[in-house]
Amino acid sequence: MTTLTPKILAFDVFGTVVDWHGSIVAEMARLYPQVDGNAFALAWREGYRPAMARVMSGELGWTRIDELHRMILDDILPRFGLQAMPEAERRLLNRVWHRLNAWPDVVPGLMRLKQRHVICTLSNGNIGLLTHMARHAQLPWDCVLSAEVFQAYKPDPRVYRGVAEVFYVAPAEVMMVAAHQDDLAAARACGLLTAYIERPLEFGAGQPKDVSPEPANTLHARDFLDLADQLGA
Amino acid sequence: MTTLTPKILAFDVFGTVVDWHGSIVAEMARLYPQVDGNAFALAWREGYRPAMARVMSGELGWTRIDELHRMILDDILPRFGLQAMPEAERRLLNRVWHRLNAWPDVVPGLMRLKQRHVICTLSNGNIGLLTHMARHAQLPWDCVLSAEVFQAYKPDPRVYRGVAEVFYVAPAEVMMVAAHQDDLAAARACGLLTAYIERPLEFGAGQPKDVSPEPANTLHARDFLDLADQLGA
Repeated sequence: MTTLTPKILAFDVFGTVVDWHGSIVAEMARLYPQVDGNAFALAWREGYRPAMARVMSGELGWTRIDELHRMILDDILPRFGLQAMPEAERRLLNRVWHRLNAWPDVVPGLMRLKQRHVICTLSNGNIGLLTHMARHAQLPWDCVLSAEVFQAYKPDPRVYRGVAEVFYVAPAEVMMVAAHQDDLAAARACGLLTAYIERPLEFGAGQPKDVSPEPANTLHARDFLDLADQLGA
Repeated sequence: MTTLTPKILAFDVFGTVVDWHGSIVAEMARLYPQVDGNAFALAWREGYRPAMARVMSGELGWTRIDELHRMILDDILPRFGLQAMPEAERRLLNRVWHRLNAWPDVVPGLMRLKQRHVICTLSNGNIGLLTHMARHAQLPWDCVLSAEVFQAYKPDPRVYRGVAEVFYVAPAEVMMVAAHQDDLAAARACGLLTAYIERPLEFGAGQPKDVSPEPANTLHARDFLDLADQLGA
């Protein structure tokens, strides 16, 4: 147990809070059983960073993740033999990102962490998406913060500094919680505390992820319950 | 019971959700019993619109309500013989707006309304203030939306249209809920549905408020439980 008491815990969402890979594989198995759901989920997610890079370079104006997800979806459907999918079905499928399921430790962990800390999202997902997801997965956020609020995508420093500004606290009073070392490195460069969460199955059982500790992080936790233990919550 | 099913219920906060007058009177009675708490609360709130008008006219750059509240506080303290109040005490007192209490019908009403509708704030209060208030008063918002997100204060149309855009819905799928006819009139002009909530004691028992119905509103409700009844929630 440490004596750290960050006032604000800011959570990355995709992969850290919700199992995007497993949720998309399950949806594909239900709706399009002929498709390789694992490859489909990976291809959809792979388009994410390049799409955000087009926004941050100025090639695209400010665009929300719902729209980026849709552009990537339209792009990959032909590769999976689904090029004939009608518009209404594409819209519905694109909303799968609003219906992702939380990892099993998340809700009990957040309920404990919320007792002593303000808990908020800090995600590149847009506000509407994160709000619908919170309702679906019963995530008890105090507040939904998004790249949409700051009009910049992580790892842009404006997003990390923005949380501290919103709450009038010093950057070192905010702890970024994520399953991705690059997100945490960018947060650390802005003066935030960092907690790494192991999500070895983020990309599915076929593609186990390296979850070895990075000594530069403030904390390294197996999951949200372990994080609550380490924060004395 | 109507058959209206707005997807999003957007709530004004000060006066509609929380009893700012009663909460400030109680805080003043506890900390500064020599002061007329009723007059103090009214004076503090009276400075609110002129301060926002200075921001919206461009005289002040974008300024959050926490800072506007502080400017007004510094301005009124001498009038109440409190000009010697030290900085740390001013800061603490200014945070009273984060600790306002909800009207008694609010939490049970929101719990019912949340079952079928997305419930969010749509307040000129800043995100940090609204988040702390939600924790204090146990308000189960799905999402905290604020003038701070849209960088404009109500009744600017960008705020009302902003909610619909955040959730990718038509303005008529959003219902603005407020205890103030001018807020509702501005929302209606942007195509939102409107629900008026009676809060006859918003300004205290000494200054009862006219709560008579405005026929242009979609609904007129005594309180949040009546609103839930009328929406079939």
